[in-house]
Amino acid sequence: MTSAAAATHKSTDRPQVGFIGLGLMGYPMAKNLARAGYRLAVSNRSSQKAERLASETGAAAGTPEEVAKNSDVVFTMLPGPSEVEAVVRRALIPAARPGTTLVDMSTSSPPLARKLARLGSERGLGVLDAPVSGGDVGAIEGTLSIMVGGEAEDFERAKPLFDVLGKTVTHVGPAGAGQVVKAANQVVVALTIEAVSEALVLASRGGVAPEVVLDVLGGGLAANKVMEVKREKLLTGDFVAGGKVASQHKDLGIALQTARSLGVAMPATALVEKLYGSLMSHGLGDLDHSALLKVLEDLSPGR
Amino acid sequence: MTSAAAATHKSTDRPQVGFIGLGLMGYPMAKNLARAGYRLAVSNRSSQKAERLASETGAAAGTPEEVAKNSDVVFTMLPGPSEVEAVVRRALIPAARPGTTLVDMSTSSPPLARKLARLGSERGLGVLDAPVSGGDVGAIEGTLSIMVGGEAEDFERAKPLFDVLGKTVTHVGPAGAGQVVKAANQVVVALTIEAVSEALVLASRGGVAPEVVLDVLGGGLAANKVMEVKREKLLTGDFVAGGKVASQHKDLGIALQTARSLGVAMPATALVEKLYGSLMSHGLGDLDHSALLKVLEDLSPGR
Repeated sequence: MTSAAAATHKSTDRPQVGFIGLGLMGYPMAKNLARAGYRLAVSNRSSQKAERLASETGAAAGTPEEVAKNSDVVFTMLPGPSEVEAVVRRALIPAARPGTTLVDMSTSSPPLARKLARLGSERGLGVLDAPVSGGDVGAIEGTLSIMVGGEAEDFERAKPLFDVLGKTVTHVGPAGAGQVVKAANQVVVALTIEAVSEALVLASRGGVAPEVVLDVLGGGLAANKVMEVKREKLLTGDFVAGGKVASQHKDLGIALQTARSLGVAMPATALVEKLYGSLMSHGLGDLDHSALLKVLEDLSPGR
Repeated sequence: MTSAAAATHKSTDRPQVGFIGLGLMGYPMAKNLARAGYRLAVSNRSSQKAERLASETGAAAGTPEEVAKNSDVVFTMLPGPSEVEAVVRRALIPAARPGTTLVDMSTSSPPLARKLARLGSERGLGVLDAPVSGGDVGAIEGTLSIMVGGEAEDFERAKPLFDVLGKTVTHVGPAGAGQVVKAANQVVVALTIEAVSEALVLASRGGVAPEVVLDVLGGGLAANKVMEVKREKLLTGDFVAGGKVASQHKDLGIALQTARSLGVAMPATALVEKLYGSLMSHGLGDLDHSALLKVLEDLSPGR
């Protein structure tokens, strides 16, 4: 961690930035921060990617604890709540200096986000939950939508960095609120895919060409972004991801768990989570989430 | 029926038009045809409305059989399949002269539409199923979307009349196809309302303001027309219709019946039809269909 440690001793107004989790989303996000001129320290479970990013951008690579110790703002972009628990709670919160801001951009659970904010606050850390939508394309192009929960002053501190990563950055409420909005987002996305899938199977078995259905429905109250963005996949049946079935399934699980903890009924979400589960059990987690159409087709034997 | 009979003897290239069913949708549609200069004969279950339209437009009022006998094209705009069966099958098909085109614009069942086309064809009649979307505002302003099933030559014959009634007019396939597309449309509308309702209850119980949720979700893959058009109703809880719960419930019943006849699985539609049924059983059929939000709120006791 020599170069990162050295970097923190350079005198400058710009914060030293840490980034942990260099997957499909995190890698291009970290790269955008480096390109914007931020001094970067990075960490990843497989150190190969961290070293690749280091060689591409001059970032320092190290362990999560090393990154935390030497950064003013630390981003995490991890697969889900259990990785967030392991990295943010067990590594970053204990290691970070007081005054550091931790920004978890993973899609994780609202109760965990609130817990991390509380634990962080006890150690003098600001903690934001800041999940995103917009996919890998948004991550690469720096056009993500970022929904941020936490204290206003922490949000303001991280705002210039968010503006590098995303196009629409919204402070949606206190700790956990970002994850709540992300869960709500994933519910609407999944149920819209289900709606379009049921409509397409009905229409095609009823003798109407699917492209005609998408055209006509797109002109009225039934119009939605899924029909636009997923049009080619739905028409060709070529479900190369895109947003993956596995992520959608995981995110619906988080939404349902949150709903249960709040006493909220989500009957259609519960149903659609099961249908995504059937894709998972057939080993199709890497397909695009619009592959839900296949489940409906398989469930429809015809007459 | 004196004036209508007289009208048919005027020499002109423009067809004599009949319109049966002068409800919330039919009345302004018939009026638009009269305004466009078509000679009109009308009929309604309660003759008062037919007489009012006659005095406003100079249209002739009579029984469905009289209208059928004296028209080249006869439109029907009726509450549902049983009324279509009664009027189109039992009155219009027997009474119309060969060469007449019957256009059913009601939201009705695809199998019934196919049956009417067959029976009409045996009597030398063209029969189109041409349900609409766009609501009473679209009917008044002549901006409906019209999805038409039937023979191409019948469609071409009725096209100039459709262009008076609607903005987007699409020949979607053979007899019944219009009703199939309308059913698919209603499925997507209802499931989108369900999706937005589940998301809003989750978010508001999770401490996020509903307007923030609608704003953020509207910027990404979760975006849909329901969140735009129903925004005020969803935020204020004032569910004055708009598209009614009763119509939405009836339309989902048609979609499910069609799905059953085709061997198509629509598990989310079946669930949402039940939720609309609970609004019906509470006597709330006249509310706007976005009042589904109330069901989800009632089902969510909180902790």
